Amino acid sequence: MKKLSAQQAISLLQQELAKYNEYKSMGLKLDMSRGKPCKEQLDLSKGLFDILNSSTEDFGAPDYRNYGLVDGIPEAKRFFAELCEVNEDEIMVLGNASLTIMYDTLQRGMQFGVLGNKPMNMQGKLKWLCPAPGYDRHFAITQLFGFEMITVPMTENGPDMDMVERLVENDERVKGIWCVPKYSNPQGIIYSDDTVKRFARLRPKAKDFRIYWDNAYMIHHLGEDAPLLNLLQEAKKCGNEDIAYIFGSTSKITFAGAGISFIIASKNNIDSLRKMLTIQSIGPDKLNQLAHIRFFKDKKGIMEHMAKHAQILKPKFQMVDKILREELEGYAQWHNPRGGYFISCDLYQGTAKRTVELAENCGVKFTPAGSTYPYKKDPGDSNIRIAPTLPPINELEIAMKVFACCAKIAYCEKLING
Amino acid sequence: MKKLSAQQAISLLQQELAKYNEYKSMGLKLDMSRGKPCKEQLDLSKGLFDILNSSTEDFGAPDYRNYGLVDGIPEAKRFFAELCEVNEDEIMVLGNASLTIMYDTLQRGMQFGVLGNKPMNMQGKLKWLCPAPGYDRHFAITQLFGFEMITVPMTENGPDMDMVERLVENDERVKGIWCVPKYSNPQGIIYSDDTVKRFARLRPKAKDFRIYWDNAYMIHHLGEDAPLLNLLQEAKKCGNEDIAYIFGSTSKITFAGAGISFIIASKNNIDSLRKMLTIQSIGPDKLNQLAHIRFFKDKKGIMEHMAKHAQILKPKFQMVDKILREELEGYAQWHNPRGGYFISCDLYQGTAKRTVELAENCGVKFTPAGSTYPYKKDPGDSNIRIAPTLPPINELEIAMKVFACCAKIAYCEKLING
Repeated sequence: MKKLSAQQAISLLQQELAKYNEYKSMGLKLDMSRGKPCKEQLDLSKGLFDILNSSTEDFGAPDYRNYGLVDGIPEAKRFFAELCEVNEDEIMVLGNASLTIMYDTLQRGMQFGVLGNKPMNMQGKLKWLCPAPGYDRHFAITQLFGFEMITVPMTENGPDMDMVERLVENDERVKGIWCVPKYSNPQGIIYSDDTVKRFARLRPKAKDFRIYWDNAYMIHHLGEDAPLLNLLQEAKKCGNEDIAYIFGSTSKITFAGAGISFIIASKNNIDSLRKMLTIQSIGPDKLNQLAHIRFFKDKKGIMEHMAKHAQILKPKFQMVDKILREELEGYAQWHNPRGGYFISCDLYQGTAKRTVELAENCGVKFTPAGSTYPYKKDPGDSNIRIAPTLPPINELEIAMKVFACCAKIAYCEKLING
Repeated sequence: MKKLSAQQAISLLQQELAKYNEYKSMGLKLDMSRGKPCKEQLDLSKGLFDILNSSTEDFGAPDYRNYGLVDGIPEAKRFFAELCEVNEDEIMVLGNASLTIMYDTLQRGMQFGVLGNKPMNMQGKLKWLCPAPGYDRHFAITQLFGFEMITVPMTENGPDMDMVERLVENDERVKGIWCVPKYSNPQGIIYSDDTVKRFARLRPKAKDFRIYWDNAYMIHHLGEDAPLLNLLQEAKKCGNEDIAYIFGSTSKITFAGAGISFIIASKNNIDSLRKMLTIQSIGPDKLNQLAHIRFFKDKKGIMEHMAKHAQILKPKFQMVDKILREELEGYAQWHNPRGGYFISCDLYQGTAKRTVELAENCGVKFTPAGSTYPYKKDPGDSNIRIAPTLPPINELEIAMKVFACCAKIAYCEKLING
């Protein structure tokens, strides 16, 4: 980080405040707060609506319009099993939100226990590992269920595995860990082979410990695909296949508001979850599954579809990087991700909240500072998640300039006022 | 019930066994076990597939293809609020299965407590009232959660309200009751005005007692609509509006495998449930909601749609009644429902299991005897749920003849062997 003298700081502050007032006078109203696909991305899946129509005769067998198949249609299981390189009896394909599968899976563990273990509700105060910066909605679930959330620092290769191993292998109260292993939310980090292997061979003190492996961005690369080892296969090699639940969805492939989602786990885990699901549900929306699978056709089809997304998104990520380089070199650190939905930016300590506040007062909304940490408390008050997908590129450019300006103001204020 | 002499019984048995062997030689393979809509019914909603297509421009605002609106799209809330005569802030419209909403609502009460009350998980052994005969999937939920299920007898006007009042108003451990108030599953009973009013003014000993009012067949009449008092409105009149959760879906209106569902309750209850739903889900499939509402257009549209269902179903219900009258008059009692999906048939005590077994051996599958009671135990072993909707009418006729024949065989066996 740059070291400015008091005089330099005052002069920079004056300069940035002048810019700030100009931006303010523009009456901006921009929203950079959520990782939402943009209209052009949603339009890529318009063909999905034509797959089923009033002259369709074949709705699967037995007729998917009717009851049955509580864990998804065979075509969908086959499709995602192939895509994720697992067996068809290791997957359930369900409704619109993979977040719901995660929540429900954890709730089942709380209420009924994991694979025959004592219900977690009856085990007293429990702990959960939260690699951070991470995804606020993950943390919200474990907070709701009353877990003590333990922050695990992220490295370039994934979570700090020394810490993970120490905690998981020695503390029976540690019951799980949130992971976004590919293009992690928000840093865009890809877990290294060594990280995945160390996860696969974890020997948890608690038999009901599970890795919640949210592979939300598995095929969401901006350029070349980045390889990620298959956790379930690696775990099998160590006879450890019950250790993980793997989640995914088409929320950022087709429609965030009308996609399909899935869970992958060992046959043991899936059989146990299916048994409970049968009481909870008469089944997911099977026609949406059918339409999705007929729309993609095959792995090649979905990969081509993702390339179109990348074409729309890449210039946006490049724009963010460009403005950050032009404006915040030396004032901030950030990743240039190879995929996913976010750019994680670390500002000068103690200035993230102020930066977001300044931007908001100028009509530009960012994800609240702190959101990327458990309990929404970033100990350094420095991390901000930038979500470049939704705004048109010209708006994105202005929003990022406002961001840079606010970050520099907050930085100068900090230097001057301490 | 007819009283036959031993000699008459032997002679009837011989006669029916002869018929039985004839049926057996036909190699039948018929399924009467589930209340599934038939193909003609499913075809009524084919137009639903054409509502959204690749040239659609208007996907609501903000774009329903994207994230947001965790409790349903405004159009859907408005539509079902109007249909059910409640306010728009008293409803959430969600995914494919209303059973899931019931399960999740109960699970929330177990884990987090109902409207600020102590979590039910922390209240020791609890009880649940189960009007019976009733719906097996309801009973399966409360069994899974470990409730002691108390059978409440059904009358022509709904559950025995003297018993309901006595138990609910004096026992703090009674936390809920399952109700299907209109065309009840399986008897087709419509709760009388007096019954609904007594539910509305219940003064439960437990503050977290709730009526689970599964209005699954609210507009599923076979001829004239039968009126049912509005429980939420009646409860409001007594300042008791927090007492009920009301559920419904389009499972038997459009597609059992791809419909939409809703929960209605007081604003207090809905606000509390929504808060937890926000952690569990990023939202339901909003495009399916949009397509449904544009397909129905308005109340008139959905009522006309239901009239088409009735046209398909009425002859089937009439056929069942005809065969029962011709073959089982004096050997069984049954209702002739004005709507819904089932005909409930009470056979001679101790013969239901045997009847279903005989039919199954002859290639005709009925809902397992006992299913309509808590723990799948019908104390009289007499009730069988007949589901006439799925089979074509000619198959239905044979299936019912087989049923009557088997019932008479079981009856004679009982008379002869005691």
